[in-house]
Amino acid sequence: MPELRKDPVSDRWVIISTERGKRPADFKVEKEAEKTGFCPFCEGNEDKTPREIISIRKPGTLPDKPGWLVRVTANKFPALIIEGDVNRKGQGMLDMMSGIGAHEVIVETPEHVMHLGDMPVEQIEKVLWAYKQRLIDLEKDKRFRYILVFKNYGSQAGASLAHPHSQLIATPITPRYVKMELTNSRLYFQQKERCIFCDLKEQELGSGERIISENEYYVAFCPFASRFPFEIWLLPRKHYAGFQELPDEERSQLAIMMKDTLSRLKVTLNNPPYNYVLHTAPNPTPRAGRPDYWGTIGYDYHWHIEIIPRLTMMAGFEWGSGLYINPTSPEQAAKFLRDAIV
Amino acid sequence: MPELRKDPVSDRWVIISTERGKRPADFKVEKEAEKTGFCPFCEGNEDKTPREIISIRKPGTLPDKPGWLVRVTANKFPALIIEGDVNRKGQGMLDMMSGIGAHEVIVETPEHVMHLGDMPVEQIEKVLWAYKQRLIDLEKDKRFRYILVFKNYGSQAGASLAHPHSQLIATPITPRYVKMELTNSRLYFQQKERCIFCDLKEQELGSGERIISENEYYVAFCPFASRFPFEIWLLPRKHYAGFQELPDEERSQLAIMMKDTLSRLKVTLNNPPYNYVLHTAPNPTPRAGRPDYWGTIGYDYHWHIEIIPRLTMMAGFEWGSGLYINPTSPEQAAKFLRDAIV
Repeated sequence: MPELRKDPVSDRWVIISTERGKRPADFKVEKEAEKTGFCPFCEGNEDKTPREIISIRKPGTLPDKPGWLVRVTANKFPALIIEGDVNRKGQGMLDMMSGIGAHEVIVETPEHVMHLGDMPVEQIEKVLWAYKQRLIDLEKDKRFRYILVFKNYGSQAGASLAHPHSQLIATPITPRYVKMELTNSRLYFQQKERCIFCDLKEQELGSGERIISENEYYVAFCPFASRFPFEIWLLPRKHYAGFQELPDEERSQLAIMMKDTLSRLKVTLNNPPYNYVLHTAPNPTPRAGRPDYWGTIGYDYHWHIEIIPRLTMMAGFEWGSGLYINPTSPEQAAKFLRDAIV
Repeated sequence: MPELRKDPVSDRWVIISTERGKRPADFKVEKEAEKTGFCPFCEGNEDKTPREIISIRKPGTLPDKPGWLVRVTANKFPALIIEGDVNRKGQGMLDMMSGIGAHEVIVETPEHVMHLGDMPVEQIEKVLWAYKQRLIDLEKDKRFRYILVFKNYGSQAGASLAHPHSQLIATPITPRYVKMELTNSRLYFQQKERCIFCDLKEQELGSGERIISENEYYVAFCPFASRFPFEIWLLPRKHYAGFQELPDEERSQLAIMMKDTLSRLKVTLNNPPYNYVLHTAPNPTPRAGRPDYWGTIGYDYHWHIEIIPRLTMMAGFEWGSGLYINPTSPEQAAKFLRDAIV
């Protein structure tokens, strides 16, 4: 019997089509065609990208020269542009705004081919450091309401370059999905004086059937109303609204969990294309240390990372309804991921 | 300069990346691999599908035998199942419902290979007739809140069988995207005592820059805040909330417009994969003829068909934000489609 399930955070229903009960081997993952030719993200080609914004470098090396370990630059083909004011205007009943924003690339390693799950923990830490620094810097820009950090791995997941990289886009509006999560988290807090994610985490840890792995600071699980087969949420156990709050001493634990989770995904599903998205509070992010923390918009949010392997196709039904049909229950998916040998 | 634009109906912002300004030839459309082998939708294989629900047949032929021109059956692998009650239950903070619904297939023609734009108008009329009959029948089922009719064309658009067919899924909830459109249409009506789609149609006809084609009863245009390159909306000029209201005498005009629009898409973009979705009022649909018409939920809605060619990839940014980056402005897209020779 199929089930309709509702995600408590986004208020989104999904159809869990248990009969179909697709197992990992039922998903065909096409082998990525090897991309040869010039790569602007490889060491030595620093002059082929916009100038470097921040980096971690070997001692004695210069910006925009070889010797970096992680490197952030503006996107050469930005979806939104950084210079200008946010002008709002109407045209009859239609509304528009100038396309102001930041679009940056975080090159994760000088190595051209490298799965994040195969990187040394220290390298992943550097990537996470870069995310945090860019969020802290960009949230100061009063024009931006939100900063979305994401990664596309594999051409089927929208990556146009194979070299390991993440991106971020800062927008002058709070994006639609983010707004829904914020609204529902706030509503929940108003009713209960508790964070919806903290409660969800407790319930998931209690039942255990959707848990993939956990350590002292983080927990990874397949959400109850997973839109996609093998969807994973990675959540800090402590309540932090914004990723900017991530204490330096917890960063290595997060890197360990990301490595573990993405390795499990790679092993279980034969190196599938995937996206991950950092879901964090909007700007300006409330900080736990601030005296006004529990009274600021967004304090009732809880940052987390959502990982989506790209195994199924969006079709007319999903486009028209926003209702997803997931052929693998999260309980099954979690078991496969839990049992993976990494 | 890129632009942020908001769709007035769904309240959805999109990024129109005018710099990228992708033209039809910039989109690579892969040629569909020819699928040989057994087809359960071909004439003579009627016993390989569930029994026929309705059909249009040559005189003297029998149900579930050859001789049909359009044929509707249940989906052999339904996402939701028809038998049972809609049971709602909670599990701690999580909510679920039994997966009750209808999932049907409308086989559009006995011919195995046929683009809808190449069908005779009379054949398309038969398909539209079938949509209407199934909506009228299924809306009587009190368990269903909504019926979504859609078509997937091409494997990249999610079609698993090449034989021309549409599908419908009736759900015990009003899907998320539908609900947003209904909420906004209602809000607009409450403010203005006018239908938002009627106003939008007038503004589009007035400016003309996004219009593709029109006839006495219908208008096709690229919406101002198109999520996807070459997205098309096909709207009746008269106000009808539900597709069930479509008068028989207007059906041929709609068939002509569908043929015209889909042919333009095929010619302009080299036969791309596409989805279309019928957006109609929820159950029970208010009818213009009924005395309570202008006081019923959904009367302020206006049915239309949304056509989405599948030319771009959803990536991490879209999954995380719900904000789409469209590399072709609707004004450019409409011009290409308008100029297409069909």
